Amino acid sequence: MSIIRYSPLLTDLYQLTMLAGYFEKGMHRKQAVFDLFFRTNPFHGAYAVFAGLQTALDHLAGLRFGDADLDYLARLGLFRENFLAYLRDFAFAGRVIAPPEGSVVFAGEPLITVEGNLAEAQFIETALLNIINFQILVATKAARIQHAAGDGQVVEFGLRRAHGPDGGLHGARAACIGGARRTSNVWAGQVFNIPVQGTHAHSWVMCFDDELSAFRAYADCFPDNCVLLVDTYDTLESGLPNAITVAGELRARGHELRGIRLDSGDLAYLSRTARTLLDQAGFPAVKIVASSDLDETLIDSIRNEGGCIDIYGVGTRLATAGGPGGGALGGVYKLVRYDGQPKLKVTSDLSKATLPDCKRLLRAVDGDGRYLMDILCRHQENPAAGDTVFDPLNPSRCKKIPAGAELREIRRTVMDRGLQLTEPESLEEMADRCADQLRRLPEGTLRLANPHVYKVAVTADLRDLRDSLMQKHLGETYEMAE
Amino acid sequence: MSIIRYSPLLTDLYQLTMLAGYFEKGMHRKQAVFDLFFRTNPFHGAYAVFAGLQTALDHLAGLRFGDADLDYLARLGLFRENFLAYLRDFAFAGRVIAPPEGSVVFAGEPLITVEGNLAEAQFIETALLNIINFQILVATKAARIQHAAGDGQVVEFGLRRAHGPDGGLHGARAACIGGARRTSNVWAGQVFNIPVQGTHAHSWVMCFDDELSAFRAYADCFPDNCVLLVDTYDTLESGLPNAITVAGELRARGHELRGIRLDSGDLAYLSRTARTLLDQAGFPAVKIVASSDLDETLIDSIRNEGGCIDIYGVGTRLATAGGPGGGALGGVYKLVRYDGQPKLKVTSDLSKATLPDCKRLLRAVDGDGRYLMDILCRHQENPAAGDTVFDPLNPSRCKKIPAGAELREIRRTVMDRGLQLTEPESLEEMADRCADQLRRLPEGTLRLANPHVYKVAVTADLRDLRDSLMQKHLGETYEMAE
Repeated sequence: MSIIRYSPLLTDLYQLTMLAGYFEKGMHRKQAVFDLFFRTNPFHGAYAVFAGLQTALDHLAGLRFGDADLDYLARLGLFRENFLAYLRDFAFAGRVIAPPEGSVVFAGEPLITVEGNLAEAQFIETALLNIINFQILVATKAARIQHAAGDGQVVEFGLRRAHGPDGGLHGARAACIGGARRTSNVWAGQVFNIPVQGTHAHSWVMCFDDELSAFRAYADCFPDNCVLLVDTYDTLESGLPNAITVAGELRARGHELRGIRLDSGDLAYLSRTARTLLDQAGFPAVKIVASSDLDETLIDSIRNEGGCIDIYGVGTRLATAGGPGGGALGGVYKLVRYDGQPKLKVTSDLSKATLPDCKRLLRAVDGDGRYLMDILCRHQENPAAGDTVFDPLNPSRCKKIPAGAELREIRRTVMDRGLQLTEPESLEEMADRCADQLRRLPEGTLRLANPHVYKVAVTADLRDLRDSLMQKHLGETYEMAE
Repeated sequence: MSIIRYSPLLTDLYQLTMLAGYFEKGMHRKQAVFDLFFRTNPFHGAYAVFAGLQTALDHLAGLRFGDADLDYLARLGLFRENFLAYLRDFAFAGRVIAPPEGSVVFAGEPLITVEGNLAEAQFIETALLNIINFQILVATKAARIQHAAGDGQVVEFGLRRAHGPDGGLHGARAACIGGARRTSNVWAGQVFNIPVQGTHAHSWVMCFDDELSAFRAYADCFPDNCVLLVDTYDTLESGLPNAITVAGELRARGHELRGIRLDSGDLAYLSRTARTLLDQAGFPAVKIVASSDLDETLIDSIRNEGGCIDIYGVGTRLATAGGPGGGALGGVYKLVRYDGQPKLKVTSDLSKATLPDCKRLLRAVDGDGRYLMDILCRHQENPAAGDTVFDPLNPSRCKKIPAGAELREIRRTVMDRGLQLTEPESLEEMADRCADQLRRLPEGTLRLANPHVYKVAVTADLRDLRDSLMQKHLGETYEMAE
């Protein structure tokens, strides 16, 4: 179901000029295949969480140029009449191959493959990258944060720092897929059916004569959903004693205080002290919520110091996917086949080379369901346990696919002839898939710093194809330059 | 004119629970004043560019809860019938005071002040912060990049890495205000009337048998708008010679090649060499466009090394406002007056304290129009040249407003009773204002690293009000804790 409709002009101008060029040269109906992938896992980590597919498919399915769009393009003075007439009937009618959202994926893997005519497959590049880069980034950040939080619950709190309204909306969506299954964002709650959570701000307390009156008033309004923010004046001297007073008053009326929220100071120390005071006062079930520029590193350090936080409200660093190795994902979209011929981007730097042609992405899984390695092969290949596979960045390193491993296809065709083949999933299903797959990774892969590097290998056939195309192109270039 | 309509549920849940609480306690019609400000200039710089106001005003003017919104809120089970009935008639009918977009502003200054009843003034916090934080951040980044680029032109190229479609759309808007007056984003071109620019991708070259054929085909389609990407195979050995060949062919047919684009490698060296080769071949007017993970620091270094780049295409780092001190702006929205009483957030850390009550924001300007310092005073005050003013973070430091300085009001009422009073401006007007104001700053304020710190001072009256409220609250808290 399409929820937010984006303009067909959600694109870089050069997609339209190239499209016009292909149209003029009669190349627009030739068959082409593009791969979307990223070269480096975000956050200096060892994995990423695939997200954004449904948003992208909704955009592709609804992609039509309206009168206002065509009028605008005509006014640019760049395009001929017959091309604009062609755009009037343009729709995406290609095939899309991708993993389901919430899948764990890795640098160098073709995540989305688009097959279609050159026009439609090229044109959608910018929109696909825009949608997928952002959602993978936030989903991966959420997975890291949830991993650091252990059994603690993570709530996405970042709308006020997100990159605009839609950044907040789809950021909450992606965060939910990665493991932050609640949000403060009401719009995201409505659109994506994510449970919403919230307390009150300091300004609530400041509108009353004193903190105790403010707490009493809030408890009176929300006796069964009362979480009190305790740091407006002084957490331990004022906020916490007042919260305990109100917890007692609520209990006398047959209700229980749900929680307190810490929003500043030394959260490890304050949460331990708050837990002790709440327990001593007879309120062991009152949850401790913490917020205050949290991210996976801070949460990890709070837990290492014995912090007693039940719920982490994570804002800026989650909604903007900030921190080292974050902020943006460098996903790219490269031509791998055109008019029946495998293609690659030529470069002397293997880490920037592309893997040509249509490919399969397989995951080797052991008898206990644990993931061993991922394997890329050519479309028609059927690799098996025992086969030797190669590091694509250093082909002198090879490894055997472990004996007994089952090879599972990670991707499937999700759209054909422009029609979605798969049933849209709930975010909960995606989040469950993500949690399940993260558990199956080799030990150390989830580590926040210096993680174990999960292996992504290519078959000999795929390696050979790349090498032969590379030699051919480099040879031609040098000849040409002479 | 409202262009993109955002949901009224673009908010944190706690805004609605607080609103319900104020409604239930009969406080929702009390008068309140909130200030929006940030505490630290972004990117470790010394200034920021104000942006996002029109987007925010459009949202406020259109803020209405529809049936689907109220149904969703009812299903949450948190709100009573009479509150939901109140929301049905809810609209923002308050006053908004702000500088025009493109104004240069500084940490600690009240940028937007909202006066209204407590309900409306509190409720809009999240949406305002979401819109303004993001656009200030990107506009400021653009100003830094344009400053580094000197007379070079900056084009916003970041849609594929922006945080979602709307992050790209409004990111382009903000970038334009800050100085990147062109974009590759066609949607932004259409919606905001920003000139759009684009060339072709590597995939264009890869769809032809060789690079020269690809260049000839592109020149054939766009003889008067032809910029050729020269790094698909080898910039100096292949791309540039082929581009020069095509430039000659174009000229023979009465056209001129517009430019070449470098997208990898040592841009300082390549651009110098390309300039020499183009000049020697008789094409001194062909522009050199460069793109490749650029930001203000890289551009500065390229120019210091004698790079010959005419047009900088800046993508990821601009659209996501990345880099040190970037990624997110920590703007906050604080209650400064409630029910006739000045309010402040109490804290022992002066850098986190708020400045209470309604204030004026003035700029001291010398006879040549150069900016000397900004001054915050109480609403009814009229400070003048010669008055002593104080550093709000270190009140022992004081300074006289220079003799002869003219004090200009930076902000004006832009919305009253929920109606916008000002005529919407074009982005060009805002960008012109920004460029003009940046030129008036003291020497060194624009420096990328370790800049001169522009002074923002408070009057004695405002300082005294803050100090007396702080003493009163801290005194009460300590008494309470005894």
